[in-house]
Amino acid sequence: MTYAVATLPTILAPEADAAAAADALQAQLTKPAGSMGRLEGLGARLAGLYAACPPPIPEPVAVAVFAGDHGVLAQGVSPWPQEVTAQMVAGVASGTAVINALARQVGARVRVVDVGVATELAPGLDVDRRRVIDGTADFTTGAAMTRDQSLAAVHVGLDVANQLIDDGARLLVTGDLGIGNTTSSAALVAVFTGADPGAVTGPGAGSDAAMVARKIAVIRAALQVHRPDPADPIGVLAAVGGAEHAALAGFLIGAAARRIPVVLDGVIACSSALAAHAIDPGVTAYLIAGHRSSEPGASAALARLGLEPLLDLGLRLGEGSGAVLAVPLVQAAARLLREVATFESAGIGAAPAGT
Amino acid sequence: MTYAVATLPTILAPEADAAAAADALQAQLTKPAGSMGRLEGLGARLAGLYAACPPPIPEPVAVAVFAGDHGVLAQGVSPWPQEVTAQMVAGVASGTAVINALARQVGARVRVVDVGVATELAPGLDVDRRRVIDGTADFTTGAAMTRDQSLAAVHVGLDVANQLIDDGARLLVTGDLGIGNTTSSAALVAVFTGADPGAVTGPGAGSDAAMVARKIAVIRAALQVHRPDPADPIGVLAAVGGAEHAALAGFLIGAAARRIPVVLDGVIACSSALAAHAIDPGVTAYLIAGHRSSEPGASAALARLGLEPLLDLGLRLGEGSGAVLAVPLVQAAARLLREVATFESAGIGAAPAGT
Repeated sequence: MTYAVATLPTILAPEADAAAAADALQAQLTKPAGSMGRLEGLGARLAGLYAACPPPIPEPVAVAVFAGDHGVLAQGVSPWPQEVTAQMVAGVASGTAVINALARQVGARVRVVDVGVATELAPGLDVDRRRVIDGTADFTTGAAMTRDQSLAAVHVGLDVANQLIDDGARLLVTGDLGIGNTTSSAALVAVFTGADPGAVTGPGAGSDAAMVARKIAVIRAALQVHRPDPADPIGVLAAVGGAEHAALAGFLIGAAARRIPVVLDGVIACSSALAAHAIDPGVTAYLIAGHRSSEPGASAALARLGLEPLLDLGLRLGEGSGAVLAVPLVQAAARLLREVATFESAGIGAAPAGT
Repeated sequence: MTYAVATLPTILAPEADAAAAADALQAQLTKPAGSMGRLEGLGARLAGLYAACPPPIPEPVAVAVFAGDHGVLAQGVSPWPQEVTAQMVAGVASGTAVINALARQVGARVRVVDVGVATELAPGLDVDRRRVIDGTADFTTGAAMTRDQSLAAVHVGLDVANQLIDDGARLLVTGDLGIGNTTSSAALVAVFTGADPGAVTGPGAGSDAAMVARKIAVIRAALQVHRPDPADPIGVLAAVGGAEHAALAGFLIGAAARRIPVVLDGVIACSSALAAHAIDPGVTAYLIAGHRSSEPGASAALARLGLEPLLDLGLRLGEGSGAVLAVPLVQAAARLLREVATFESAGIGAAPAGT
């Protein structure tokens, strides 16, 4: 571990006592034991993370959408031109993108962060301007970023997490924007899981079969050139990552260090979580998988992290869209522990044995 | 069809033009085509159901929890005593049950309806008292209800749907309460799908393996005695159904006749939907499967109805709990069509070909 990474904050383990108390409380609520399925374990996890039983309802909720561009786009890995990243940043800033509509649905606020967009953003937009690079370099011909840029982007994510929490957020949600970023994500997943690029690369925002084959070839070539060391996550992010991936890794670590859980979106977030896990494995306890993206790299990353997603709706947009849709489920898991009567309080007598 | 069933209201088909317009609009929104997965098709369905593109956001939301008792409980098909039904009705009426907590999470109101509870309810409870029977009879020794009671319960559900819609609800959610009702549900699923009772009977609210085997034997015996005709749904409900199943069937038909979609909960709702479908197949277009209950009969019923559930969280509580958790997803599907910018309005140019 380099000195610079060592300056990242410490992550404490969840409070096992609070989680155990939640498990015990769960069995006293007026419902058959186990009948709320996955929400029961999630409720106990939340008790451990917030170190309180019952846990608070996870709100307010803030989505951070980290935006960056990718030099590897020059290799023809996306049907979309690079300018669309900046245009979508403007869309999120103006409240008209998918993530804005979904955030309104669940009562979350959205902050969009330019951590590495290549093109000019219009002045006056409601964007958190923290650009560390004007788009990454094409990683087939050299590193995507320098180590310093990679680490600077990690610190941007860390700062954003701290600011959102300082502003009151008690649940964070990952978001991302960046034409070409599923190629970078697949490369990260291949490095950190050891999977073959062919098994973890998908169509992203609309590649056809030939383009997916090109993405795979590009990733294979880059891994040959860089031979990134999964034990050196800042170096891996510098080699084949995007600024938004590095920022997301820092965002996850920043949240976990403050005992704030984070709902992960799709393959960009999941690949960034692998990097965060390589920096500090303690981060994983604070991560909640919002959904199973249809991108294959997302499932590979979740399996490696030991996370089971809440939703499986065939989503593959990014922006945080799948994660924010899972927010009401996370809140419901805590709410059950806070608001449902026990058999004793309801005067129903104990649950029958064996249920 | 008997004269009495013929008095049920007519269900119109969804507006195909509005659904097609929503599909066309979907392709213009600032996102890769298809990237919102299942929510895209759901949005188009909602446009067809509400006959408007974009569809309104489905709100306000009302959950109707129909409660009934089951004479078949005498056969030892549940670990819980019959009195728990009335106690849980009181819990829902006082706002302390699981369904109340979850309804608060999604901003839904809850009405609990006594359509067939066996035991006395305390006076003064906030319960819609429309009892048509003091619990059904044990269907292993005779019909659970008379045809008149079955039809009366259908009309209770129809009336409740109409009242909730008259009071402003634009999305309805099914709920249910009744110790022993998974046995009745499995019997209904077996009749309407032709499945073997062994394939569609589960542990319900906590039966052990021996009790599940007893449930299966009881259902087999009852089907031998009654030989219910799936083409006579009022008769099937009278033979092996519960008052809450009949009411739910009427509730679904009532909502569909008013062009209001209904989110289905677990096996009680799904088995009731089979009865509603047998009364009028047009009802199915208005049904949204909220979740895949872990009860096997629910999956068998959904398959027969051609419905794919939104959530799969291992839930098996009933009360409407899984359905109400899916409400934000349904609302999000409509909200995307209403609130997301098009490529044209955002000045991004058209989506690339093939995406």
